[in-house]
Amino acid sequence: MSSQSAKVVKVTPLEDSDAKWVGLRAIEWVDPTGKQRKWESADRKTRKGDVDAVAIMTIIHRPSHEPHLLLISQYRPPVGKSCIEMPAGLIDAGEEGDEGTNRAALRELEEETGYGTEKEGGKVKIEETTPAMHNDPGLTGANMKLVVVNIELSDDAAEPVAKPEEGEFIEKYLVPVKGLYQSLKDFQSRGFAVDARLAHLAIGLEVGAGNMGRL
Amino acid sequence: MSSQSAKVVKVTPLEDSDAKWVGLRAIEWVDPTGKQRKWESADRKTRKGDVDAVAIMTIIHRPSHEPHLLLISQYRPPVGKSCIEMPAGLIDAGEEGDEGTNRAALRELEEETGYGTEKEGGKVKIEETTPAMHNDPGLTGANMKLVVVNIELSDDAAEPVAKPEEGEFIEKYLVPVKGLYQSLKDFQSRGFAVDARLAHLAIGLEVGAGNMGRL
Repeated sequence: MSSQSAKVVKVTPLEDSDAKWVGLRAIEWVDPTGKQRKWESADRKTRKGDVDAVAIMTIIHRPSHEPHLLLISQYRPPVGKSCIEMPAGLIDAGEEGDEGTNRAALRELEEETGYGTEKEGGKVKIEETTPAMHNDPGLTGANMKLVVVNIELSDDAAEPVAKPEEGEFIEKYLVPVKGLYQSLKDFQSRGFAVDARLAHLAIGLEVGAGNMGRL
Repeated sequence: MSSQSAKVVKVTPLEDSDAKWVGLRAIEWVDPTGKQRKWESADRKTRKGDVDAVAIMTIIHRPSHEPHLLLISQYRPPVGKSCIEMPAGLIDAGEEGDEGTNRAALRELEEETGYGTEKEGGKVKIEETTPAMHNDPGLTGANMKLVVVNIELSDDAAEPVAKPEEGEFIEKYLVPVKGLYQSLKDFQSRGFAVDARLAHLAIGLEVGAGNMGRL
């Protein structure tokens, strides 16, 4: 029951008035010279506050292992493939501000991977909560925050159990932080798609470690 | 005539059949258990080949300066703000494969910033061309490649002149690669939006340099 066994069977045009989750918008705007112009935007209809979603960069530490990054894959119908991503999810009503973002991050992390509960999922330390950032600003106003989390587990702790919602089919992977970019290429050669934000993080790691983009 | 002087004046719903650049799609898909399900996707109507767009991570080297990253800002109507991004653009017909991607990258880089021509824009070395990656795979099939470029300039070379297309209002910034994440936060505190892919690259740099997410 691998996520790679899912498939798209039919794609049809969808009018905005029939769409529940995504909306199209015509924007009239004034450019820096004062000239009136038009743009088209695709946005989520589900936003509860200022931010659509949160993703979690989760670094797993066990005493006898090098640090690993916790990744997931799930079938993404818009892409027509199973996609390698960081755990992530939409922010619910009542999850405002950095505190709400962190709560949403730990909720999604536990649902999708089982990590992050004190008892079985390891000892969690939230290290950074970014400001909101825009996924594809020419196409959509959809935005997100990223939460950076360190999780400590003993060597003999069992792999925690995910608590997916109905309709979620998520597989998880522990990938060494060092060499992440090559690991993503390996996933792609096995037929997976890769999330661009995760891939940019991997490029940053390579540049920061002096392996690419001469510093 | 700062890009921050632009503004949105009107937003109205847009039906797919009236949209030129963005399309809504209803997807029927079969989940890993064999159950038929539905999804909604927003996609560009402009794709010429397999990939929508290319972004360029441009590291500028001058002998007496530390390495700087070349960034731009432009007003993004879907976001309603001027957004800090890497130079980027849509891939044209005939720009297939890695070679076409690299050609598109250098074309966009020159248009938006003036960098990348041998004469005035510095000596260019393309270091990496990533596979295609997906910007926001739950919302859209929109995808991109990233090209990593080193550019050498002498200390006394003049700042090259951009060649924007009609309707492009682009400002450029040279930001030290070290400390990029803090620079992005500074832009945000001045009212700019930040592209999520650039911000993830900045987080990767911090983690790779040992300043975040304990390795």
